[in-house]
Amino acid sequence: MHAYRIEIRIVPRRGILDPQGKAVADALHSLGFPDVTDVRVGRHVVVETRAATSDEAGRRAVEMCERLLANPVTEDYEIEQVVAIQAVSAAAHE
Amino acid sequence: MHAYRIEIRIVPRRGILDPQGKAVADALHSLGFPDVTDVRVGRHVVVETRAATSDEAGRRAVEMCERLLANPVTEDYEIEQVVAIQAVSAAAHE
Repeated sequence: MHAYRIEIRIVPRRGILDPQGKAVADALHSLGFPDVTDVRVGRHVVVETRAATSDEAGRRAVEMCERLLANPVTEDYEIEQVVAIQAVSAAAHE
Repeated sequence: MHAYRIEIRIVPRRGILDPQGKAVADALHSLGFPDVTDVRVGRHVVVETRAATSDEAGRRAVEMCERLLANPVTEDYEIEQVVAIQAVSAAAHE
């Protein structure tokens, strides 16, 4: 088993109303960025996991997106990268 | 003026408590992903803007992060890419 860091991008699908993005765009206009024409706000999820191979880690990440991380109706996801890392810090959140 | 799409990643800084990431990690464990050791949840922001050059678009994106998009105390941000696009849809959210 090796340790991998997986970077996942999840964004509202085009054509889906994104009220948070609209609010951010309005705020940017007020703050002196009048040239902004559109903002969409999604999530960036970093998963650290153990897996036998980089390919397996990527496959598991797709499963995670399908089952929990992304809303299949309103969001698109992309596995941006799978990187082997030296050590997995299981205590990072404890 | 040209149109650019800027992809920005904003993630909780390492060492900062990330309750949402912890909750997602716990949920993944319950769903049959016991090898997950850490999850952090940040934001992925897609900004479309007009600018004279790609460099200027990138500089404006850094300003947006500093002034609104990212919390400088708890978050790290990265301008992932600045891409020239054909047309800016000002009506995308309307």
